[in-house]
Amino acid sequence: MKNTLGRLSALSLVIATLSAGALYAQEDEKKKTDHPGTTEGERRYMGAPHMTDAGEMTLHPNGPEITSAEWAESTKIYFERCAGCHGVLRKGATGKPLTPDVTQPKGTAYLKVMIDMGTPGGMPNWGSSGDMTAKQIDAMARYLQHIPSPPPEFGMKEIRDSWKVYVKPEDRPKKPQHQYDIDNIFAVTLRDSGQVALIDGDSKDIIAIVDTGYAVHISRPSSSGRYIFTIGRDAKINMIDLFMKVPKTVAEIKIGTEARSVETSKYKGYEDKLAIAGAYWPPQYVIMDGDDLEPKKIVSTRGMTVDTQEYHPEPRVAAIVASHQHPEFIVNVKETGKVLLVDYSKPDALTETTLEAARFLHDGGWDSTHRYFLTAANQSNKIAVVDSKDREMEALVDVTKIPHPGRGANLNTAKYGPVWATSALGSNEITLIGTDPEKHPQQAWKAVKVLEGQGGGSLFVKTHPKSKNLWVDTTLNPDAKISQSVAVFNADDLDAGYEVLPIAEWAGVADKGPARVVQPEYNKAGDEVWFSVWSGIDQPSAIVVVDDKTRKLKKVINDPRIKTPTGKFNVYNTKHDIY
Amino acid sequence: MKNTLGRLSALSLVIATLSAGALYAQEDEKKKTDHPGTTEGERRYMGAPHMTDAGEMTLHPNGPEITSAEWAESTKIYFERCAGCHGVLRKGATGKPLTPDVTQPKGTAYLKVMIDMGTPGGMPNWGSSGDMTAKQIDAMARYLQHIPSPPPEFGMKEIRDSWKVYVKPEDRPKKPQHQYDIDNIFAVTLRDSGQVALIDGDSKDIIAIVDTGYAVHISRPSSSGRYIFTIGRDAKINMIDLFMKVPKTVAEIKIGTEARSVETSKYKGYEDKLAIAGAYWPPQYVIMDGDDLEPKKIVSTRGMTVDTQEYHPEPRVAAIVASHQHPEFIVNVKETGKVLLVDYSKPDALTETTLEAARFLHDGGWDSTHRYFLTAANQSNKIAVVDSKDREMEALVDVTKIPHPGRGANLNTAKYGPVWATSALGSNEITLIGTDPEKHPQQAWKAVKVLEGQGGGSLFVKTHPKSKNLWVDTTLNPDAKISQSVAVFNADDLDAGYEVLPIAEWAGVADKGPARVVQPEYNKAGDEVWFSVWSGIDQPSAIVVVDDKTRKLKKVINDPRIKTPTGKFNVYNTKHDIY
Repeated sequence: MKNTLGRLSALSLVIATLSAGALYAQEDEKKKTDHPGTTEGERRYMGAPHMTDAGEMTLHPNGPEITSAEWAESTKIYFERCAGCHGVLRKGATGKPLTPDVTQPKGTAYLKVMIDMGTPGGMPNWGSSGDMTAKQIDAMARYLQHIPSPPPEFGMKEIRDSWKVYVKPEDRPKKPQHQYDIDNIFAVTLRDSGQVALIDGDSKDIIAIVDTGYAVHISRPSSSGRYIFTIGRDAKINMIDLFMKVPKTVAEIKIGTEARSVETSKYKGYEDKLAIAGAYWPPQYVIMDGDDLEPKKIVSTRGMTVDTQEYHPEPRVAAIVASHQHPEFIVNVKETGKVLLVDYSKPDALTETTLEAARFLHDGGWDSTHRYFLTAANQSNKIAVVDSKDREMEALVDVTKIPHPGRGANLNTAKYGPVWATSALGSNEITLIGTDPEKHPQQAWKAVKVLEGQGGGSLFVKTHPKSKNLWVDTTLNPDAKISQSVAVFNADDLDAGYEVLPIAEWAGVADKGPARVVQPEYNKAGDEVWFSVWSGIDQPSAIVVVDDKTRKLKKVINDPRIKTPTGKFNVYNTKHDIY
Repeated sequence: MKNTLGRLSALSLVIATLSAGALYAQEDEKKKTDHPGTTEGERRYMGAPHMTDAGEMTLHPNGPEITSAEWAESTKIYFERCAGCHGVLRKGATGKPLTPDVTQPKGTAYLKVMIDMGTPGGMPNWGSSGDMTAKQIDAMARYLQHIPSPPPEFGMKEIRDSWKVYVKPEDRPKKPQHQYDIDNIFAVTLRDSGQVALIDGDSKDIIAIVDTGYAVHISRPSSSGRYIFTIGRDAKINMIDLFMKVPKTVAEIKIGTEARSVETSKYKGYEDKLAIAGAYWPPQYVIMDGDDLEPKKIVSTRGMTVDTQEYHPEPRVAAIVASHQHPEFIVNVKETGKVLLVDYSKPDALTETTLEAARFLHDGGWDSTHRYFLTAANQSNKIAVVDSKDREMEALVDVTKIPHPGRGANLNTAKYGPVWATSALGSNEITLIGTDPEKHPQQAWKAVKVLEGQGGGSLFVKTHPKSKNLWVDTTLNPDAKISQSVAVFNADDLDAGYEVLPIAEWAGVADKGPARVVQPEYNKAGDEVWFSVWSGIDQPSAIVVVDDKTRKLKKVINDPRIKTPTGKFNVYNTKHDIY
């Protein structure tokens, strides 16, 4: 029998690095005749091209016997469940390398145990959870002792073939066809159903549920706020027009087979002109037209690592942000540990400046002035600081184990001046980094203060310029009491500790499934904080709205259409990089 | 029996694209016990890492039987003889693609015939020439139906391990220790002996013979002219100090396993500061310290092609030149058809601007003002014009079949103003392109005139600002009369046709081996032209010096140490890009 809560716990690191394995949480509750045990969103995702398309077996002469049927099935399972952490080419990232030089000395029996039982370090227990059969595990253990073969490329032909414009720019409304305040709309990822909910921040009405890619990682509004761009884990981008009476997708495209990031141009004169998306596979980013997603340029990120300067075949694109200082996108490349400044002012003479950070770059956000981009280097336990104005690396700050800032949170403290905060996956520490080299040079780019939170497994922190509250989730903590609540600190009295708000309890779903609380997000006014209470796809989930001043429950949005909600993006705060 | 002259003829395209196959011309005359039939230089080259180091067999399920011994030998032969034209990963370039989807439908019998007999299109006759045995050809035909496996990478560790400083900068002489005019020294590639001869342009004395990499492709002086950098086909760079009484190698390094280009920084303030070299395998360029070759940065060139924007795993670095307008290197990437402007002013924030030219970029040179870099796109039959000042593509000019300009030649014509000339491999045409958009806008970036030369198979044209002669070799022409002579045009009367000078006959070696005349090169004063008469390694070769004004023989340098001379680089003309 399957222990769904146990699965979620083992998935902690998997979700943290946004692996394909996490797709399968809770799948066994839902049966369909064509793909028993999958959700609608999953089945769309499973339609992505697989390595097996190439029909090649790259056998190692010292590897164990394997049939072509076993090869094909293992290839598919590996890409869907293992590649997120171990890399498509098995070079390792959050997970260990699994190339034949590593796996052959371990041998089939050892590998089978690892796959079956998992490890405390974050490897899921694929066998004992019921996700993989004994036969599949046995084949996988042998498969891993052969040579990794890359999945198919996804170049301009494949990208253009996936491109659809449903409503041309000239056919779209000239002004909003509804009375909602677009700036206060929230785009909420409905993870396992492959949708985004658009919710009015004022009335809390659901304006629309839009089909998107699977497990949308982020929603980014265009610079003007008129369009929302979503990127699915399956590398599908939906461009949604918020002027429409019922907002819907006006254009879509796939920029690879696995992706995490999308952004639009924000520099003066380039507002809404261009979009960019970064892929995990193939390792590349794609620049598109900002009004219809027409693909313009594809740039590969394959290259040398920042430290040893050895070639890496699979440097995945993590976070991307648009510079406010120059017509540039700032692109984090995970495995090489490099930050690329991509000048988009001359698309036919694209200029890329490579800044040297540390492995493995993940996500990050701006300081309050929008000059410095602070980004986590996960396995190096560092925060890299990019000076987007002078276009250089400003600092590499040592922090706690596996920082996971999301976009981080900017507080103005009396003692340290402005600081940027990150929580962590690997510890209960919230690290505050000084961000004001002019007026607080002693504190700048140093971990000036470490707060102790409820526990490890935190994904997101959040505050707002109009608030003194610093909110910290603990979504992946194995203790349900902790994962179902949030901590809130007072920026004016950080040493006073934190208050705990029982968010899932307030939603009334704490006992009705494997609910976890994830991602605080402010409304436009900065007087409400929204939380996702994320449960199984057939169990009740909810959005909980808290009054920021009183820290009391203000509203529970528990419409049955809100399934598996995770990330929420307020249009105004997101387009202005306010956090 | 082996027909050496026939082999040279079949090698035309092979040499043109500088393939490993050409290494083996005339090898059977020389026997050594350790490697029978190889030259000293070849044996050094053969010491380079091979694909077999990885010990992997990447079998295709539909490929024919092959033993691991056959696999290993075929892998080695492929890398040494086939990869130059077909690409290490068999994606094709000058040669056709040889991936399993292409080779399996042809089948073993067909492939064997192709390898054995060659084709008129440039494929050498490896069997009938005696280079490969029937057994080797049979194994190769089966090997080619399996999946290409990449040879080992060559990253910073391998590069640093190869780096040797023989004489530190502080231990080198402060001024020249001899009476030669350094500006008039010629560095002459002694191709098959893996050496460079340094010859005094005034006395014609051989100053030194320096051991280098194998088949040095070019010698580039540093900006000051004090150092000569040679790059071997085996990716070995030798840095030779011309201040020494007997100039010798002061530092050396290997930047890959196969390479063609080296250059040094020339922009004001950066003279002699940095060196750069471009590799064929791995596809990358390497920036080094200009005074001791210490490796600084490696940048991979793997990425998308310019036209279809599909991923290419092996975009080789062809010509590199140093900009006179900005602190930049201009790097030609062959298979992707892109020109990279690499800003070296901030090595830790390296900036690369990608200009879009056409496939497959090869070599090229400057217009007379040193603002425009004109470079051949071989398979597109185009010349791409880079505006190095405004940092953009200026034009793509249609020209004749397979242009091969070397660095080209700049003439000042009464009718068209300044023009840049290129000859061709595939035809007898010499194309003149107008290069003065300001005073001759009608002619600029157009093929204003096409001259008919002696025949196809030309590698190099040359002139000098003080001369009105335009010299055209026809090195790879199958007709010995044509390959052993050169044509010379008068820039003031281009319609008058050309005069033919029987250079090999003047050297007295026309009948003593497969002599071919290659590469005119001026002395510093611009009143002498030097030609290489390139024969087999055990047959007499020579350098022939012609008086530019009278077009009469001035001197034959026929020292027995001058074996297989090819490219010659006059220090003054090369450092100032005069041609």
